[in-house]
Amino acid sequence: MLDYPLLQAMAAVVETGSFERAAQRLCITQSAVSQRIKQLESRLGQPVLLRSSPPQPTALGRRLHNHLRQVQQMEQSIGLGEPQEQLTLRITVNADSLATWLPAALAMPDWPQVRYDISVEDQAVGLRRMKHGEVMACLCASAEPVNGGRAQYLGLLRYRALASPDFLQRYRQPQRPDWLAQAPCLVFNRDDRLQHDYLRQHQAAEPRHTHGCPGSEGFLRCAIEGIGWGLLPELQAREALAAGLLCEVLPDTPVDVPLYWHYWRAESPILAALRNSVVQVAARWLV
Amino acid sequence: MLDYPLLQAMAAVVETGSFERAAQRLCITQSAVSQRIKQLESRLGQPVLLRSSPPQPTALGRRLHNHLRQVQQMEQSIGLGEPQEQLTLRITVNADSLATWLPAALAMPDWPQVRYDISVEDQAVGLRRMKHGEVMACLCASAEPVNGGRAQYLGLLRYRALASPDFLQRYRQPQRPDWLAQAPCLVFNRDDRLQHDYLRQHQAAEPRHTHGCPGSEGFLRCAIEGIGWGLLPELQAREALAAGLLCEVLPDTPVDVPLYWHYWRAESPILAALRNSVVQVAARWLV
Repeated sequence: MLDYPLLQAMAAVVETGSFERAAQRLCITQSAVSQRIKQLESRLGQPVLLRSSPPQPTALGRRLHNHLRQVQQMEQSIGLGEPQEQLTLRITVNADSLATWLPAALAMPDWPQVRYDISVEDQAVGLRRMKHGEVMACLCASAEPVNGGRAQYLGLLRYRALASPDFLQRYRQPQRPDWLAQAPCLVFNRDDRLQHDYLRQHQAAEPRHTHGCPGSEGFLRCAIEGIGWGLLPELQAREALAAGLLCEVLPDTPVDVPLYWHYWRAESPILAALRNSVVQVAARWLV
Repeated sequence: MLDYPLLQAMAAVVETGSFERAAQRLCITQSAVSQRIKQLESRLGQPVLLRSSPPQPTALGRRLHNHLRQVQQMEQSIGLGEPQEQLTLRITVNADSLATWLPAALAMPDWPQVRYDISVEDQAVGLRRMKHGEVMACLCASAEPVNGGRAQYLGLLRYRALASPDFLQRYRQPQRPDWLAQAPCLVFNRDDRLQHDYLRQHQAAEPRHTHGCPGSEGFLRCAIEGIGWGLLPELQAREALAAGLLCEVLPDTPVDVPLYWHYWRAESPILAALRNSVVQVAARWLV
């Protein structure tokens, strides 16, 4: 059995970002925090924290941290947790959901003690973190559950390929079937293949020039500024479309991306409540 | 002297994300791409690419890649570059600038051949990538130039501490001087100390509970949904403030964050043009 006070010392350092603040939170001395972590590491035979500034958990440290939080949630759900204990929900989500409909689902007034620790990851990374037990749930486009997990279908996030009117005037060449491939294309990062897939489908071509813009709001603003064309969630671009700041590059060619909520079979009540909220809000906003 | 065709093979793999597409781009066989990269690695005595899917540059690979791009820009600026060559500008910026004023500065109609490769980093990471020669410019709050670089002051990005009216009604306790520290607080990630500094200044307290929300638009939406309070750029929250969806948690207590553009002394004409555009747009939008 793991020695939980040692794990709590590690968790406090990770969450507060320093040994000093961890000691304050736990009401022990800084050297006691240090000793507990060393003891944990000597028992496990591996480091759990990198002594950087701020200290970072190792892969093992992250797993232990997540495990501790899940145990604490289980304790709470059987009425044994400390009442003032924070319930930290570690979830990994896709950037466009966080920028649009997801926050409405995260608002859970019946659970005021919930704290979120959200990370934004590409699908492959998100599912890997789920497999490694580093997160408690993952929102992504993959339907395939991880071992010991389930995936619940939420709906389709509808994208439209958009650009500014000036941009289209500059680059549209109706006589050239692959004109869009010649125009600068926005991509979120190198793993984002949405634009590539769209071009292959509609113009049998690859984008010749891409801009990497890894921020949802920045992506929208770069499209409005005429820096490139790109696929944007309809939810996010609605106002810019209505105001005529953006138009579809090819008429009525939406791309629908399915979204799934990945969760563990051993789901705590709070995570079940969150999943329920996500499913309800998704039903309202997704296609 | 470096063997540039070998570097170009590596750059093509990094930029296209596969050996196959790199071969297509360079009009050589896939095995020729492979051989060139092996040759480069055997000359340098170190790997330049991790053979993952997609292949990733090592730290050395990133430096070489960036160096290659800078050499190509120099060639262009003396009229010797291939005209269709892409000018990839690798820059690292803070998330809130990318979500607000920066895209207007990135739109440079006189340089249609420019391609951006933007990364969003915390200040410390961004400056480290600048020092290591991995990026050509860095937008952040630090005034201290890196070795061989300069830092130009741009102005102040004004933040306001905001929350939804419901949230304030739930948590505001005028009789308690540290009430805000008891309310859930949004932070971008663990390195984001804006909220901590604000609380220390105004209520001499630390936030007891934080939510980590690493997306600018998501941060705004979480504040509107009443999940937490947090510091948001005034530029970004303007509409939500006007619509009464957000209010200041303490009246008229802005936080002004200085922004600097870090660049290399050996600046290519295109980077000088970008800096000029950034300075002009910043003058319009920053305080």
